[in-house]
Amino acid sequence: MLTGGGDAPGLNAVLFGLVTRAEALGIECLASEDGYEGLIKGCLVPLDAAKVRGISSQGGSVIGCSNRANPYAYPRRNPDGTLVTEDVSARVAETVKRENVDVVVALGGDGTMAMTSRLALLGVRSVGVPKTIDNDLAATDVTFGFQSAVDFATMAVDRIHTTASAHDRVMIIEVMGRYAGWIALEAGLAGGAHVIVLPEFEYDAQRIADAIHRRASQGVNYSIIVISEGAKPIGGTHAITKDMPAGHLPKLGGAGDRLGKALEPLVPDHEIRVTVLGHVQRGGSPVPFDRVLGIRMGVAAAEAVAAGLEGVMVSLKAGRIVTVPMSDAVGRTRNVTAEDERVLAARAVGVEFGVDFDRR
Amino acid sequence: MLTGGGDAPGLNAVLFGLVTRAEALGIECLASEDGYEGLIKGCLVPLDAAKVRGISSQGGSVIGCSNRANPYAYPRRNPDGTLVTEDVSARVAETVKRENVDVVVALGGDGTMAMTSRLALLGVRSVGVPKTIDNDLAATDVTFGFQSAVDFATMAVDRIHTTASAHDRVMIIEVMGRYAGWIALEAGLAGGAHVIVLPEFEYDAQRIADAIHRRASQGVNYSIIVISEGAKPIGGTHAITKDMPAGHLPKLGGAGDRLGKALEPLVPDHEIRVTVLGHVQRGGSPVPFDRVLGIRMGVAAAEAVAAGLEGVMVSLKAGRIVTVPMSDAVGRTRNVTAEDERVLAARAVGVEFGVDFDRR
Amino acid sequence: MLTGGGDAPGLNAVLFGLVTRAEALGIECLASEDGYEGLIKGCLVPLDAAKVRGISSQGGSVIGCSNRANPYAYPRRNPDGTLVTEDVSARVAETVKRENVDVVVALGGDGTMAMTSRLALLGVRSVGVPKTIDNDLAATDVTFGFQSAVDFATMAVDRIHTTASAHDRVMIIEVMGRYAGWIALEAGLAGGAHVIVLPEFEYDAQRIADAIHRRASQGVNYSIIVISEGAKPIGGTHAITKDMPAGHLPKLGGAGDRLGKALEPLVPDHEIRVTVLGHVQRGGSPVPFDRVLGIRMGVAAAEAVAAGLEGVMVSLKAGRIVTVPMSDAVGRTRNVTAEDERVLAARAVGVEFGVDFDRR
Amino acid sequence: MLTGGGDAPGLNAVLFGLVTRAEALGIECLASEDGYEGLIKGCLVPLDAAKVRGISSQGGSVIGCSNRANPYAYPRRNPDGTLVTEDVSARVAETVKRENVDVVVALGGDGTMAMTSRLALLGVRSVGVPKTIDNDLAATDVTFGFQSAVDFATMAVDRIHTTASAHDRVMIIEVMGRYAGWIALEAGLAGGAHVIVLPEFEYDAQRIADAIHRRASQGVNYSIIVISEGAKPIGGTHAITKDMPAGHLPKLGGAGDRLGKALEPLVPDHEIRVTVLGHVQRGGSPVPFDRVLGIRMGVAAAEAVAAGLEGVMVSLKAGRIVTVPMSDAVGRTRNVTAEDERVLAARAVGVEFGVDFDRR
Repeated sequence: MLTGGGDAPGLNAVLFGLVTRAEALGIECLASEDGYEGLIKGCLVPLDAAKVRGISSQGGSVIGCSNRANPYAYPRRNPDGTLVTEDVSARVAETVKRENVDVVVALGGDGTMAMTSRLALLGVRSVGVPKTIDNDLAATDVTFGFQSAVDFATMAVDRIHTTASAHDRVMIIEVMGRYAGWIALEAGLAGGAHVIVLPEFEYDAQRIADAIHRRASQGVNYSIIVISEGAKPIGGTHAITKDMPAGHLPKLGGAGDRLGKALEPLVPDHEIRVTVLGHVQRGGSPVPFDRVLGIRMGVAAAEAVAAGLEGVMVSLKAGRIVTVPMSDAVGRTRNVTAEDERVLAARAVGVEFGVDFDRR
Repeated sequence: MLTGGGDAPGLNAVLFGLVTRAEALGIECLASEDGYEGLIKGCLVPLDAAKVRGISSQGGSVIGCSNRANPYAYPRRNPDGTLVTEDVSARVAETVKRENVDVVVALGGDGTMAMTSRLALLGVRSVGVPKTIDNDLAATDVTFGFQSAVDFATMAVDRIHTTASAHDRVMIIEVMGRYAGWIALEAGLAGGAHVIVLPEFEYDAQRIADAIHRRASQGVNYSIIVISEGAKPIGGTHAITKDMPAGHLPKLGGAGDRLGKALEPLVPDHEIRVTVLGHVQRGGSPVPFDRVLGIRMGVAAAEAVAAGLEGVMVSLKAGRIVTVPMSDAVGRTRNVTAEDERVLAARAVGVEFGVDFDRR
Repeated sequence: MLTGGGDAPGLNAVLFGLVTRAEALGIECLASEDGYEGLIKGCLVPLDAAKVRGISSQGGSVIGCSNRANPYAYPRRNPDGTLVTEDVSARVAETVKRENVDVVVALGGDGTMAMTSRLALLGVRSVGVPKTIDNDLAATDVTFGFQSAVDFATMAVDRIHTTASAHDRVMIIEVMGRYAGWIALEAGLAGGAHVIVLPEFEYDAQRIADAIHRRASQGVNYSIIVISEGAKPIGGTHAITKDMPAGHLPKLGGAGDRLGKALEPLVPDHEIRVTVLGHVQRGGSPVPFDRVLGIRMGVAAAEAVAAGLEGVMVSLKAGRIVTVPMSDAVGRTRNVTAEDERVLAARAVGVEFGVDFDRR
Repeated sequence: MLTGGGDAPGLNAVLFGLVTRAEALGIECLASEDGYEGLIKGCLVPLDAAKVRGISSQGGSVIGCSNRANPYAYPRRNPDGTLVTEDVSARVAETVKRENVDVVVALGGDGTMAMTSRLALLGVRSVGVPKTIDNDLAATDVTFGFQSAVDFATMAVDRIHTTASAHDRVMIIEVMGRYAGWIALEAGLAGGAHVIVLPEFEYDAQRIADAIHRRASQGVNYSIIVISEGAKPIGGTHAITKDMPAGHLPKLGGAGDRLGKALEPLVPDHEIRVTVLGHVQRGGSPVPFDRVLGIRMGVAAAEAVAAGLEGVMVSLKAGRIVTVPMSDAVGRTRNVTAEDERVLAARAVGVEFGVDFDRR
């Protein structure tokens, strides 16, 4: 078992369901700590039901996460200090063989599923559990962590209302979402934001300024904007791109600041303030929805292993946990579309997206 | 528009979506306050988009609720003080006619949908929005309010862990759920309860005591039990029954106390404590899930009215908002079954239900 | 170190401050688990700074609590099954001697301080840290845990408002407080309760009913009552008394139910509902106020030990941590008085206490 | 009555206590909306007990705030678009006279108290209620709003732990506090931050980097830094200064980003992430502590008016509400000192402040 990529509320609920069910089925569990790190370094740690008791309500992952430990591009520092990557997948295969691992159960997103699928070529059997706090995996209707992130982001939007309204301000709240804007869309709609800016649609700052002026002309002198970290202006570039090597992401600044700077000359009568929620959204105790979903997925993964399945991922489809080919999850993301019912509902209640949907 | 029955977090989100969308579609909205009370008394209040701005995050219903104002069994006190009911549905029809109401949009549960369906016989067109905090309406996959109730109940279970474990106690938490145990099931699973007792399965107190002893024999001297208010022992009677007239429900005591008294002689080495969450579960700000769902349903109801539909209810099916015949919602409840995947997952992680599922 | 009595949010913050500071001062820490149980059984567990890292935010106590392990009245079951108590304080003295314990640091309330003071007669040095979730220790202005309990109780009162107002109900919320009503007073005032019933003043149910009718005559058909678990009617008896042996406290029912039954015939037009918050109030993560106070007290206790003090208790006086004689804390409780400024403020904003303050 | 400056959780609790008590004392209340704006424009709005019912739990201020409406420096835009300020205090005196206002009750901070004191020269009587979310007014031990801000900031620090530890990161959280670091100090201590950076002490980035390396050498590869928005490096300048005209404050960027950039070359092995909590800290429902304090202060202000006092401010001193000369509050701030017991406690548990306290 391993948990790859960034952490997400609900990982521990999956581990609780997985290990507890596996033990009852007579399956022994070994943890690879920090994602693939344990498998690469050849160090696995036994985990039993007693050790995972009570962890479902905790954030993070008791076995650690890593978004660096990629068996196919493992970072190594050269003598001259430069950072290169190398293929160490053979070490994973060795560990699997030496420790008599039958199945690798990988909890992770697109990237982790891709790595794990490739290991099949080395004879490593695997079962996946989808993890994506941005909710952008196509192969499952929804996954754990997303609702917890929306919960925190919505609370932040709720709280900003009083201050924004008391001081005629434009408040920008930057939330997670590099390629998919689901968190911004749901938290914006739930929190009563007036403008929602998503990575899926390049925004026109003038349209947003117009919306602010329109509100002001109706006597409402404040506006709340929820923006995804991956949003970009028309013709602009993403602040973050997929091929940036891990560890080289821009550390400071972001989409909220950029929009703030663009709006400043357009709405000179308003003070603009930016809040960057950042990694606070990933932390904390998972909401019950994510815990229940996590436990169900963990139990299902244990049963998939017991049933001898391989190359599959557990998935939620129309309210039921099923298994789907792991390859379905690789490279296929689920994005917000202009036709999504949530977008239509938001537009129906007057939310501006900074986009001329009619001309798209 | 009216909101019938008990309140549920998310009602205001529906009203926000409904009124805002209706106004944009050129439809005028009138509110019947306190459920059917306004229609019965002939007093309707105009509601426009400005008045519902910002209410999505609020609990309760800005137009009031009532579970007494039944047009077909409206309470009246006789001169001698006794309480009788009478059919006042004709008054509703009169109000509808006099005020030129085209469509009655009723937010409510099984009971409200039944009343509203019957009004069709008097020529009153209607559209329904399903509301049931217990999540027991068959005609929709899930509805608003449920997740908020689970959220609070889970937090209570979370909090009880430290005290229970510090003092070798059996802690019983009674949650909502008269006929359907979904809240107890999800909050119990999410909160890590050791025993979950549901209305759908008559419980055997001895089995529960055995589970407590089994834990004690493994060195764990405390247990947490989540019980639905409608749960009953084998051969026992429901504390509350459907044909009890509203207002005559048992006001004090309940399922948690009853189980506590039954367990007392069976686990003499343990102190037993009962917490009754009661109506606290219905209150408070809705979680984002319920707000988004509420807004979507409200917008869909406005569009159903604009499209000239009648006798339909909006509904969530496999992630999409659709319309179904209102009659589908009447008298058909959705209950927890022994085969439900959540029950199987809970059993897989060692939760006791006080039931011998194999012999059922 | 030991934590006696019931648990309280902030105990772990004290342990964090105490152990971390002690280690820096070159003092070795041993834990007596489950209150005096470890000292009685002669089993102490070493605790160092690494083990208490990060625990300040956790509820409960990492070294367990006990309100049974009284060295002067330790429970023993006779062969015939009856429960008696015996003096085992000599065993504590033996453990202290054998393990070379210099100072016993006891975190606890009135009872724990009394036991600990008496140990001085056996030559056992001690330092106390006051713990009382009811905030009723006279020797300190305030202690940790209280604010966390008020926080949860207030949230429950907040949540009950919408339901109470939607349904013309009288809602009774029973909160902690056996002899002192501080939790009911602060949570009731903060949550906007209409009636607050405290253990310090015997209540007159008719006055409470009158207040409900008075509100109804002003068109407000609902009322929220916050009652301490130790409240009693005029001439009534406390449901719980101090000389009841531990473990024989009434397990079921309580002050809320009793008031509900008394009000039922007096307000026949209102449905009455009772919520018993119970031990949920003791659990959960401490609020920051309690964490900061706990850490400060823990650090101060370590410094008191290093300074060679004994027979003292750390205490918060006018915003500063000081030490006071431990004997000051024994048998002297702090109760709500009619002249307390919070009571006067509550009365000033129209809160009814069920008491004729003028005739007292 | 007016609420000046930025909003703070608890303002509505003060208004509730003030108006409800005033009405009972036979005093009529008029609100000046948006701080002094109403008095300047000559427009006052009556407020009675019915209108403030239930507002104590709400964030913001029902009568609006303003940090622009300064009677002695009121902004006016010249024909050429430049912004100047003028003295309009005579207009306030006119309004007071025309509307027969006996006393102006001003809820506000240092600035508002200064303006209000000066009005005495124009014959305007006044009573003050101290408001400062940063808790930096010298004339009161503590005021409402601060604890609510600490509550949210602590929760954010709590949540960041899991992510920080899972990914070997340095997490910087920027919290409120321009001149006084109380929020950073209490939230940092309560949340278990490893470094706390305050405006009162210029920081040395190298010391902070050393602390990060020291932790890494002990095998702990992550660090959490809580920094006040007003913190600055040794020899650096405050990003914000007191003489900056309102509305010309830096809108984007801040202390967190600046520290992040300074650390980047010093800890090249760590990813750095910055979260800016911003105005989210001011919003939301006040914690019970702030509500109770607010109600008490409001009641006391009403009684001060009834008692004919003027030029006084209500204040919390050693747990009691008293009145002090308003002039005591002007220009005298309360700052964190190196000798403050909280600073000493934080240092005692290993927190680094980026300061060499021994050489200061």
